[in-house]
Amino acid sequence: MDPRIREHAQIIANHSVDLAAGNTVVVDAHPVAEDLVVALHEVIGEAGAKPLWVIQRTGKRTGRAFLRAAGQAGEVDGSDDGRDVEFETPEHELALIEETDVYIAIRAGENATETSDVDPALNTAYNQARRPITEERLRKRWCLTQFPAPANAQLAEMSTEAYENFVWDAVNKDWDAQREHQAQLVELLEPADEVRIVSGAETDVTMSIDGNTPLNDYGEYNLPGGEVFTAPVPDSVEGTVLFDMPLYYQGREVTDAFLEFEGGEVVQHSASKNEEVLTEVLNADDGARRLGELGIGTNRDIDRFTYNMLFDEKMGDTVHMAVGRAYDETVGEGNEANDSSVHVDMIVDMSEDSRIDVDGETIQRDGTFVFEDGF
Amino acid sequence: MDPRIREHAQIIANHSVDLAAGNTVVVDAHPVAEDLVVALHEVIGEAGAKPLWVIQRTGKRTGRAFLRAAGQAGEVDGSDDGRDVEFETPEHELALIEETDVYIAIRAGENATETSDVDPALNTAYNQARRPITEERLRKRWCLTQFPAPANAQLAEMSTEAYENFVWDAVNKDWDAQREHQAQLVELLEPADEVRIVSGAETDVTMSIDGNTPLNDYGEYNLPGGEVFTAPVPDSVEGTVLFDMPLYYQGREVTDAFLEFEGGEVVQHSASKNEEVLTEVLNADDGARRLGELGIGTNRDIDRFTYNMLFDEKMGDTVHMAVGRAYDETVGEGNEANDSSVHVDMIVDMSEDSRIDVDGETIQRDGTFVFEDGF
Repeated sequence: MDPRIREHAQIIANHSVDLAAGNTVVVDAHPVAEDLVVALHEVIGEAGAKPLWVIQRTGKRTGRAFLRAAGQAGEVDGSDDGRDVEFETPEHELALIEETDVYIAIRAGENATETSDVDPALNTAYNQARRPITEERLRKRWCLTQFPAPANAQLAEMSTEAYENFVWDAVNKDWDAQREHQAQLVELLEPADEVRIVSGAETDVTMSIDGNTPLNDYGEYNLPGGEVFTAPVPDSVEGTVLFDMPLYYQGREVTDAFLEFEGGEVVQHSASKNEEVLTEVLNADDGARRLGELGIGTNRDIDRFTYNMLFDEKMGDTVHMAVGRAYDETVGEGNEANDSSVHVDMIVDMSEDSRIDVDGETIQRDGTFVFEDGF
Repeated sequence: MDPRIREHAQIIANHSVDLAAGNTVVVDAHPVAEDLVVALHEVIGEAGAKPLWVIQRTGKRTGRAFLRAAGQAGEVDGSDDGRDVEFETPEHELALIEETDVYIAIRAGENATETSDVDPALNTAYNQARRPITEERLRKRWCLTQFPAPANAQLAEMSTEAYENFVWDAVNKDWDAQREHQAQLVELLEPADEVRIVSGAETDVTMSIDGNTPLNDYGEYNLPGGEVFTAPVPDSVEGTVLFDMPLYYQGREVTDAFLEFEGGEVVQHSASKNEEVLTEVLNADDGARRLGELGIGTNRDIDRFTYNMLFDEKMGDTVHMAVGRAYDETVGEGNEANDSSVHVDMIVDMSEDSRIDVDGETIQRDGTFVFEDGF
C-alpha cells in the first residue's frame, strides 16, 4: 500500500474527526477506495473504536439501478395520474447514524458520469426523503475527503499518478501550521467592514462583511481544507467580477462567468461558454442573484482546477464567491443570512495583477498576504 | 451483466426473503459481488423497498486490518498482564439491524485465506462481542447466498466460468418444485422412529429420530437450499460411518473420517489425512462426540464437493451427519437437544452401493428415492 494512504487515514482519524476509544464509526466509501478504507480500519482498530463500512448509492451503479427501477413505478412530477414515485426515509439507516459518533465520507468512483441517465427529479425526490439522515450526519464528528481513483483523475484531466500526487500533497499536510497561517487572515477579517477584490481589468467588487464571522477551515469537515470564508452582507455588494476559473455545474462547464452587482443584486451577467447555465442558476430564486459566501483559498498545494469543488475552492491565491445560500455559522447575530435553494461557488484567480483590500488597506497582492515574505 | 445474476437477485427477493414495499433491507456483500448487489438494487427499487449496502469485515482485508491493529493493543488470552484486548458490541450496527426487515448476506471474497495471519482468538473474541447483532439478524427475514467470485472458484478447484455455471445451476432453480419433491421425503421421515444408513463395506449406522422434526430446506435462509434435516436422539446412535467426502475444518482438510458409535457416543475414530483435526473436534466437549444433525442432500445440481458447506451439505445423493450442537427447531418437545460449542458436518456419498432404511423399509437406494422413477 502507498504509505501516503496510511498517512491520509491517520490525518482523518487524529486531526479531522479526533477518533477516540469506544467511538462508533461509519466509513462511507465506494470499493474503489478500498485501500484507504483498509488503512482506516487499522487506525480504528488501534484506537479501540468500532467500524462499519457502508456504500452510499450517490453516483454509483447501485444508486443508478435503484433510482431507475423505482422510476419505472411512475413519475415524480406530482401529476395526478396515480403513478407518482414516493420515497420514504430509510429508518434503518437513520437509526444507524443516530448511534454513530464519527462519519467519514470518502469521495471516489469508477465513473463520474455513472448516473447521467437517471432522471434528476428522481434524485432530488430521493435526497429529499433522505434529509433527516443528512441532517443527523451533520450533528456528528464528520469528514468529507477524496480518494484519487482513476475516474476522478480523468475528470481532472490528469494521469492517475499525477492526480494521486496532487490529492495527497493537498491532504497530507501539517494542518496545525496551516491553521496558524490562516489565523492571521482571520484576524484581519474579524474586525473588518469593507472588503474589495480587484483583479485585472474586469474585476472590481466591494462588499461589507461587518458583523459576520470569518471561519478558519484547516481540514476538519473538509479534507483537504484550506480557506477562510464568511458571508457578505447581502445588499452591500457593488461592482463587477470576472470568474476566470471555470464553473462546473451539474456536469456542464461555464467559462468566463461575469457578474455585475448593484445594491447586492446581479443586474447583468454573461459567459463565453454555456451562458444559459449561468442564467438558470441566477433565476433559481431571489436569493440566487445575491452572494452567500466570500472565501479566500489558501491551500497552495492545490495549484490547478480539477472540476471538484472540494479542492477547487481551496486553491491557493484564489478568491471564490457563491451566489445563493449563506452558511448560518458565518452570519453574525442580527445580520441577514441570504437564503436560496442554490449555493454555487465561482472562482477568481488572484495570482497576478490582483489585490484584496480590507477597509482601505491592501492585505493581499498578487496572491501574497501582508503577513507573508515578499509582500 | 450475466442474465443469471438478475435471476439470482429475483429469487433472493421474491422467493427467499419475500421482499415487500416499504421494507428496510441490508445487503451485506464484498465489492467483488457488486454485480449481484446492483441487480438486488434494481429489485429493491422495483419493490419500493429501502436498501443499504454494508460490507462486513469477516474474511476481508478490512477485517484483517482491524483485528490485527486491535491485537497490537494486547492479548485476548485473559492473562493478568493488563494488556487484554476487549471488544464491545458496535451499538450503531445493532441499531441498524434492529430497524431492518430483510438481511441479505452474500458470500464472496478476493482471497479465501485473507485472514490466515489473524490470531483466531481475536476473531473469536470479536465474534463474541458481535453476538447480539448476529442474534438480532436471525430474527429478521434473512438469506445467506453465494456469488461465484474467482477466489471462491479457486477454493473449489474450478475455473471461474465452470464455477459460475455450478453456482447458478444450484441457485437458479424452480424452488416450488424442489419443495414439493422434498415434501415426499419429509412425509416419510415425520412418523419415523429408526433410520439406518448403509454405504459400502464400512458404513452401517442406525439412529432414532422419534419425535423430532424433519425440516424441508427449499432455498429460504440458505440459497442454494436442498436438504431435509432433523436431529437424531443423542443416545440412540449405533454403528460405524466412513465419511468418504472430505471434511474441511478451519482451513484444514480431513479425508476418510471414520467414526464408530456406541450408545450415541463416538468410541473410535480415524482418518487418512489430518486425523488430529478430527480428534480436536471430538474433544471440544461432551456433546462433540454425539450427533446433532442428520441431513439428506437433495440438490442434484450440486454434483461435486467445493469446500463450501453452503453447497456441500445439499449435494444430491448424499447424507450428512454433524457432531455437536442440534438445531432447536428440529428437536421435538420433551426430546433431548444435543448441546456443544461445535457443529461439524461430514458427508457420505450415497450414489452407489448404498441405502437408507426407515423403520425397516428402504426409502432410498443408490441415491434414488422410493418416490422416484427407477427405484
